[in-house]
Amino acid sequence: MSTAKSYAAYDSDSFLAPYALTRREPGPNDVVINIHYCGICHTDIHFVKNELGMSRYPLVPGHEIAGVVESVGSGVTTFSVGDRVGVGCIVNSCRTCDSCLAEEEQYCAGMVMTYGRDDVDGSITQGGYSTKVVVDSKYVLRVPDNLPLDGAAPLLCAGITTYSPLRTWNVGPGSKVAIIGLGGLGHMGVKLAAALGAEVTVISTSNRKETDAYRLGAKHFIISKDAEAITAAAGSFDLILNTVSAASEVNSQLALLAKDGTMVMLGVVPEPMPVACLPLIFGRRRLAGSLIGGIAETQEMLDFCGEHNIVSDVETISAADINTAYERVLKSDVRYRFVIDASTF
Amino acid sequence: MSTAKSYAAYDSDSFLAPYALTRREPGPNDVVINIHYCGICHTDIHFVKNELGMSRYPLVPGHEIAGVVESVGSGVTTFSVGDRVGVGCIVNSCRTCDSCLAEEEQYCAGMVMTYGRDDVDGSITQGGYSTKVVVDSKYVLRVPDNLPLDGAAPLLCAGITTYSPLRTWNVGPGSKVAIIGLGGLGHMGVKLAAALGAEVTVISTSNRKETDAYRLGAKHFIISKDAEAITAAAGSFDLILNTVSAASEVNSQLALLAKDGTMVMLGVVPEPMPVACLPLIFGRRRLAGSLIGGIAETQEMLDFCGEHNIVSDVETISAADINTAYERVLKSDVRYRFVIDASTF
Repeated sequence: MSTAKSYAAYDSDSFLAPYALTRREPGPNDVVINIHYCGICHTDIHFVKNELGMSRYPLVPGHEIAGVVESVGSGVTTFSVGDRVGVGCIVNSCRTCDSCLAEEEQYCAGMVMTYGRDDVDGSITQGGYSTKVVVDSKYVLRVPDNLPLDGAAPLLCAGITTYSPLRTWNVGPGSKVAIIGLGGLGHMGVKLAAALGAEVTVISTSNRKETDAYRLGAKHFIISKDAEAITAAAGSFDLILNTVSAASEVNSQLALLAKDGTMVMLGVVPEPMPVACLPLIFGRRRLAGSLIGGIAETQEMLDFCGEHNIVSDVETISAADINTAYERVLKSDVRYRFVIDASTF
Repeated sequence: MSTAKSYAAYDSDSFLAPYALTRREPGPNDVVINIHYCGICHTDIHFVKNELGMSRYPLVPGHEIAGVVESVGSGVTTFSVGDRVGVGCIVNSCRTCDSCLAEEEQYCAGMVMTYGRDDVDGSITQGGYSTKVVVDSKYVLRVPDNLPLDGAAPLLCAGITTYSPLRTWNVGPGSKVAIIGLGGLGHMGVKLAAALGAEVTVISTSNRKETDAYRLGAKHFIISKDAEAITAAAGSFDLILNTVSAASEVNSQLALLAKDGTMVMLGVVPEPMPVACLPLIFGRRRLAGSLIGGIAETQEMLDFCGEHNIVSDVETISAADINTAYERVLKSDVRYRFVIDASTF
């Protein structure tokens, strides 16, 4: 066992504060990682505030982890001291179910999330708002040499969450893709879809981010409240990645899909979406969901980002600024991801 | 122009009654069909009662038409006098859009439905509750010789509506398919999915039709209110064909899908369905719709039914019994499709 500096939520109502975290004794298959950066994901805020009703305190959030290997167990053959690595949302799974065998550990019923879940030693997993983490090498990713660790950190959640559906629904040259919402997820979706060869449209609530959308790789920009533009875009997209929690807009969004098109929900919409049948039936349209991605696909995504020099647009902050950053995330006031510099814990 | 006997709705509040229908003058590409049988589809009732707000009166319903060719225009090469033929929901389309070129005329914006829409001569199309119909040969189907015309008639809507999604979602040996609702659509879904090699489960509100379900080809039967059985079936189906209009059950139904499974809505649910995000996201599940099928796929379905000796289970009625039959359809009191004997008009 070793200790690490970290920031934790002590309950659902307070600010995050420094916490002396105990990490488990590394086993033969474990990698000990010196964390350099950890991204702030909206999910962290949901867990800190216990909005999903499953939080356990003290809770150290963070599942967009980038760092360098400090040591490896005797059984680890895939990583060496000094390797640049990442850890995402998954640190273990059952390894025997159909999903695990298909390398889609994110759908394993025994999937262990990076924070807040039962760890192998009986402790509770704690996330990346910390200086160090111990992870089974099977769930550790390799960060390409040309990608800076700060910009790479958000790839571990925001990157794979958008990359996986783009791959599942076979996006490539000729695909018409819309990204609803230009935030942490959305800006990665634009970069990745454009790099895959798609013609990308950003749909946003205002024109504040229009210039950014084009810079990130979009060809078109639509303001969601522009009824004329929305009508003109009806029936035009093969795939929509929906990163926005606006249940009431689901039917007008579905109408934007071409025949056989799919809208994929990536963020959790808290209330039920009032889905009308007709937009689904006329056009054989589909409404789907997608959850992060498996370990192998996450490595594929990182390698793809390496080839295309893709990282997240980040604003790097100190640990002391986490609570302020949370307030700004809730106001969509970040372009496009906060990353905590772990040297400031 | 010629006249035909028929039954029509004169307004949205009255019973259907005899109507002397004028059929358009056949053109060089038209086929004149002596109708032998016409199925009663729930959609007919929606139109008679103007529940979709688009009905025009007098309205002759009916889009499950089976009969024999009486004459053909000079340009018709594909049909001859005496051929056994069918007409479904589509009697024309634009022929130039992407959907038409892909032989999916059902998604053509200019698709002309068999009744209640503008016909080529400026009249309004009228359906199959009639003794005769004039249809462009491109939209006429061939009924295999071994299929009786009464049982074949419902294939033109109920058959293709269930066959098309089974093919779109690649159902075959090894597929696990659930059919929700054992009515006109559902009983065809069971027969067709079983013939395609799938392992079929029927989900119904009571055990009244359990014996029938097995006879039709199902391997399993679940009562939808049996919470224990529903829980036990969670995560097990690759495809669900949902023929029931029960918006409130959508999330428990989605939870029955395996990873990457799809639930296809075939009937229109009048109110919006309150779809929760989590069943979609955890399992990458999909909610979709599907509308009848194209002309080529309808012929494929009829040929498939010919090979497998599949027809609808029908109760044949006289024209005078149409209004009583409507009441029975609304009470689900038919096993499994009413077919009108056109000799009784």
